[in-house]
Amino acid sequence: MSDLTLYSMPSSGNSYKVRLLLALLGRDYRHVPCETQSAELEQARAAGHLPLGKLPALHLGDGTILSESNAILWYLGSSTDWVPGDPLTQAQMLGWMFFEQNRHEPVVAVRASLNSYPHLKGQATPEVMAQLLKEGHGLLQLMEDHLQGRAWFAGKAPSLADIALNAYTHTVGDRGGFEMDRFAAINDWCARMAARPGYEGVFDHG
Amino acid sequence: MSDLTLYSMPSSGNSYKVRLLLALLGRDYRHVPCETQSAELEQARAAGHLPLGKLPALHLGDGTILSESNAILWYLGSSTDWVPGDPLTQAQMLGWMFFEQNRHEPVVAVRASLNSYPHLKGQATPEVMAQLLKEGHGLLQLMEDHLQGRAWFAGKAPSLADIALNAYTHTVGDRGGFEMDRFAAINDWCARMAARPGYEGVFDHG
Repeated sequence: MSDLTLYSMPSSGNSYKVRLLLALLGRDYRHVPCETQSAELEQARAAGHLPLGKLPALHLGDGTILSESNAILWYLGSSTDWVPGDPLTQAQMLGWMFFEQNRHEPVVAVRASLNSYPHLKGQATPEVMAQLLKEGHGLLQLMEDHLQGRAWFAGKAPSLADIALNAYTHTVGDRGGFEMDRFAAINDWCARMAARPGYEGVFDHG
Repeated sequence: MSDLTLYSMPSSGNSYKVRLLLALLGRDYRHVPCETQSAELEQARAAGHLPLGKLPALHLGDGTILSESNAILWYLGSSTDWVPGDPLTQAQMLGWMFFEQNRHEPVVAVRASLNSYPHLKGQATPEVMAQLLKEGHGLLQLMEDHLQGRAWFAGKAPSLADIALNAYTHTVGDRGGFEMDRFAAINDWCARMAARPGYEGVFDHG
C-alpha cells in the first residue's frame, strides 16, 4: 500500500505531469480522479483536499498536502536523475518550468481547453482564438530555438523541465490547433520523451 | 568588480525580486536598468541579452544567461539560508513561487500595471478592472488564510517564496487598488519582510 494519494484531473496536462513522473519512476500511488465539472472534483474541494482550490494535489502519508504541479514534481523527483545536481542546471531547469506556468500554459494549454471542453466554447471567440494561436506559435518558437543543438531543455539529460513542458505540448497539435509541422526540433524532442521507459501519453489510458 | 550583470526593469516586481535578494545577501552586481518602453530595453532585446524576450536576465561571468525571476532567485539563493535544506520544504517553497507566477502575477500585478502605466490605460476597461479586482482579492485571501498561525510561507524561516510573493504584494494597495485593510496577516508579513536587514522596497530607490 502506497503512502501517496494523488487527486488529479484525467484530461489536464498539469495533473498528467505528476502521473507521468510517477510512471517513469515506477512508483505506486492511490489515484482519486476528479474530472472537470465532476461531482468528485466538487467533493474534493469541499472536503479541503485541495488547499489552493486546484488540481493536482498530492497527499503524503503524514497528512501533508502538496499543491502546484511543478512543485510536486520537485518533491517526487528531487532525489532522482530527473533533477540535476548543480544549482546552475537546477536554475535552468526551474527557469523552463516557470516559463511553462507563466507563459506557455496560460496560452498553449488555454487554447487547447477552449478548443476541447464543451463548457468553455462560449469563451472561444474568433478574436480570442486567433490571439492565442499567434502567441502560442511565438512561445513554441522560443522552445524550438532553444532545442537547436540540444536534446533536452536543461543540461545534458532529461529533467523535470522536459516533463513539465511536454505535458501540454505533446497534444497541442490535435487539441489546440497549433501548426506543429513548423517545429521539427519540438517534434523530435517529443519523440525522445515518448521513448523513455515507462512513458505514457496523457490519453493513453483515457 | 562583480561577475554578475543584471538586466532589470526598475518598476517591475519580477525584476525587483532579484535586486531584493541581491540586497539581502549584500552581493555586488553591475545593473543595466531597462525601463518599460525604453530604448535601453529595445537595445538589450536586439543584442540578444534577453533570450526569452523578458526581464530580468542575469548574465554570469562565463557568458551564461539565466532567465525567469524565480529561477534566478534559486540560483542566487541555493546555498544560502533563503532556501530550506529538505526536499519537502523546498517543494512547499517552490509551490508558492509557481502559484505566484501562474496565478498571482497574472492578476494582482497585471491590475497594478493597468492602473499605473499610461501606455496600458486603453486595456483597463471597467469590466477588466472589476474582474481582476475580484480575482485578486480571492488570491490574496488564499495567502491570508495560509498565513494564519504562520510567520512565513514555507517552513519556519523566510525563504525565496516570501521574496517572490512580497515583490508585487507590498505595493498592490497603492498601485493595484486592492483593499489591503482586509488582509491583516499579509500586512504583518509585509512588515516582517521590511524589517529584514538589507531590505529595500521596489520604489525606495526610485
